[in-house]
Amino acid sequence: MSETPNTDLLLSHRDARGVHTLTLNAPRSFNVLSEAMMGALQAALDAVAADPQARAVVIAANGRAFCAGHDLKEMKARPELAYYQALFATCSKLMMSIRKLEVPVIARVQGLATAAGCQMVAQCDLAVAVQAATFGVNGIDVGLFCATPSVALSRNMLPKQAMEMLLTGDFISADEAKTRGLVNRVVAAEALDAEVAALVDRIVAKPREAIAMGKALFYRQLETGMESAYQLAGQTMACNMAHDVAQEGVQAFIEKRAPNW
Amino acid sequence: MSETPNTDLLLSHRDARGVHTLTLNAPRSFNVLSEAMMGALQAALDAVAADPQARAVVIAANGRAFCAGHDLKEMKARPELAYYQALFATCSKLMMSIRKLEVPVIARVQGLATAAGCQMVAQCDLAVAVQAATFGVNGIDVGLFCATPSVALSRNMLPKQAMEMLLTGDFISADEAKTRGLVNRVVAAEALDAEVAALVDRIVAKPREAIAMGKALFYRQLETGMESAYQLAGQTMACNMAHDVAQEGVQAFIEKRAPNW
Amino acid sequence: MSETPNTDLLLSHRDARGVHTLTLNAPRSFNVLSEAMMGALQAALDAVAADPQARAVVIAANGRAFCAGHDLKEMKARPELAYYQALFATCSKLMMSIRKLEVPVIARVQGLATAAGCQMVAQCDLAVAVQAATFGVNGIDVGLFCATPSVALSRNMLPKQAMEMLLTGDFISADEAKTRGLVNRVVAAEALDAEVAALVDRIVAKPREAIAMGKALFYRQLETGMESAYQLAGQTMACNMAHDVAQEGVQAFIEKRAPNW
Repeated sequence: MSETPNTDLLLSHRDARGVHTLTLNAPRSFNVLSEAMMGALQAALDAVAADPQARAVVIAANGRAFCAGHDLKEMKARPELAYYQALFATCSKLMMSIRKLEVPVIARVQGLATAAGCQMVAQCDLAVAVQAATFGVNGIDVGLFCATPSVALSRNMLPKQAMEMLLTGDFISADEAKTRGLVNRVVAAEALDAEVAALVDRIVAKPREAIAMGKALFYRQLETGMESAYQLAGQTMACNMAHDVAQEGVQAFIEKRAPNW
Repeated sequence: MSETPNTDLLLSHRDARGVHTLTLNAPRSFNVLSEAMMGALQAALDAVAADPQARAVVIAANGRAFCAGHDLKEMKARPELAYYQALFATCSKLMMSIRKLEVPVIARVQGLATAAGCQMVAQCDLAVAVQAATFGVNGIDVGLFCATPSVALSRNMLPKQAMEMLLTGDFISADEAKTRGLVNRVVAAEALDAEVAALVDRIVAKPREAIAMGKALFYRQLETGMESAYQLAGQTMACNMAHDVAQEGVQAFIEKRAPNW
Repeated sequence: MSETPNTDLLLSHRDARGVHTLTLNAPRSFNVLSEAMMGALQAALDAVAADPQARAVVIAANGRAFCAGHDLKEMKARPELAYYQALFATCSKLMMSIRKLEVPVIARVQGLATAAGCQMVAQCDLAVAVQAATFGVNGIDVGLFCATPSVALSRNMLPKQAMEMLLTGDFISADEAKTRGLVNRVVAAEALDAEVAALVDRIVAKPREAIAMGKALFYRQLETGMESAYQLAGQTMACNMAHDVAQEGVQAFIEKRAPNW
């Protein structure tokens, strides 16, 4: 899984600001998360993690589908429990890498997001979708309950809503996905890039260090009780406030000028 | 509590597919969860658990109310702490039985769902309600905070929304219940059976084994951190994929035919 | 932090029923949570905790803003990690005091709620806002991720929604705050007092003891798994039912009369 990114399968672009755009580029196979695709994505996320100037990641896709989940043909060819265990461990590691990155990860959803594709949207910190995008965890239609997708999905929306999708395999619209909490913004197809860019611009305008501290704290505190959550958050916020970026930001605020970050 | 189902209090029907419909049948007492009713329900759920061909459960009710909660007269007649402790333990065991069943449980809500009746809706995996149904946890109106109902309710909807219902005793409409995540679908009264049947049909069309693995995993992973949730889910999904039902389902998908389950 | 309430900074009023209204009264500084304001609020909440006849708390504010968060000038004047650690510990203790109070705490939001001001709204048990109120956790705009506000915010609304606010610093409207679960009710400015009063009246009409048991249980059970949540809730509900207030409430219900509490 440590292979170098396959430029055919995954297009990787970094702009001068440190915004990495990773574009799934297997449109004819609906950008399925084959072993090769997961390897390419993992390598690309590892590269972002190793880039001290990285500021944000956009996960995008070419073609009509955003991502159709795992590669069923590849899976069927290796009917061995140990293989499947390794496969889902690889995928879960990939998903956890999205969470562990210091920079925000935004899903740019231009089409269908299915099963592990829907999971990837759920796993991202933020998501923007076109109106025609649809979302489903329909592994159950082939007899395979979307267990790993349910981890991310059930941490995005309320449980009965997630359970219905998991049990029926039914899809929801982008508007419904926004209502439920799976995506942040829904726009016309022609406005997708501008909307993602606007979100990225908002993030890049803030100091990297503050966002890194904040993202890590956010997910960590979510998994503990409120009292210890406040202890963790208080430490984080004190460190952030003592940091140059906040000292300068607050000084600039007091002086009614733009901060020099 | 292991008495056999009382066919007067609770009507139990199993169709040829393994769909169990349990109908609360004490309409004049608004289907209150008396000791006898809880005993009948527990026995019926135990019978479902013992039915290896069971596929789904529908909890329905006769009369204008779905369920008005506990039997206050019965409770008032035994003003003893130990009795109340046993009573709520019995009720909580019943509610946990809904969760622990391998098959999905759907609430068919044709009317008022109050206190432990609202809790039962919240506890089910899915719920369909008529437009005229209303939902409340109004024990506080008689000086009894709906503590056990709050367990299920606060795992269906956001906390301030649940807290308002618990503190005020106010009811919400079916549409509001759907918006908040307490029910999945709201329909006209004449469409209720068709909507429940459609949901049941979707579930029965999937393999029992995959749904059983998935339901158990879903609730288990919800109660742990994301990293261990993925470990649990990865194991579940690998076992599911290695199982005959997924092997056949995926093969059928590849061959563009219906699976032979 | 144990100074007595500053009547200039914080107006404290207790009506004959035991309803405490605490009004932030530093309108020219947008009611920032300066050390003095936090001290005054903590003392006022401690006074409520010591009032055995207290029934509810309303946190209100004078001026155009509800609360603009911490006092950035004060913070900038003490650029020491230890100071910031103590400051956020003080603030977190204040927030936890809202949760630990036996009586419900209602935020009356007449204007802008920013950063720790938005956190205070999130931390309250219930919240009512005017249509023109706006909500944001925009510390990130000065390079300070709203870590401690995120603790309360992420326990009010779904995570992607909270994350977007935290990363972008963008504000949401009162209607959006209601949709997301941050506030319970949104009304016209001229209806704000009546709506808060209606909510308070609903609460004061119930027995203090039942609400105290219920509030404590609600938050405690939210932080544990469902099985132990039911054990806690069953004990609470049994104690509540064995208590005079529920015995009288249930008897009154049976006799179709108003309870004598």
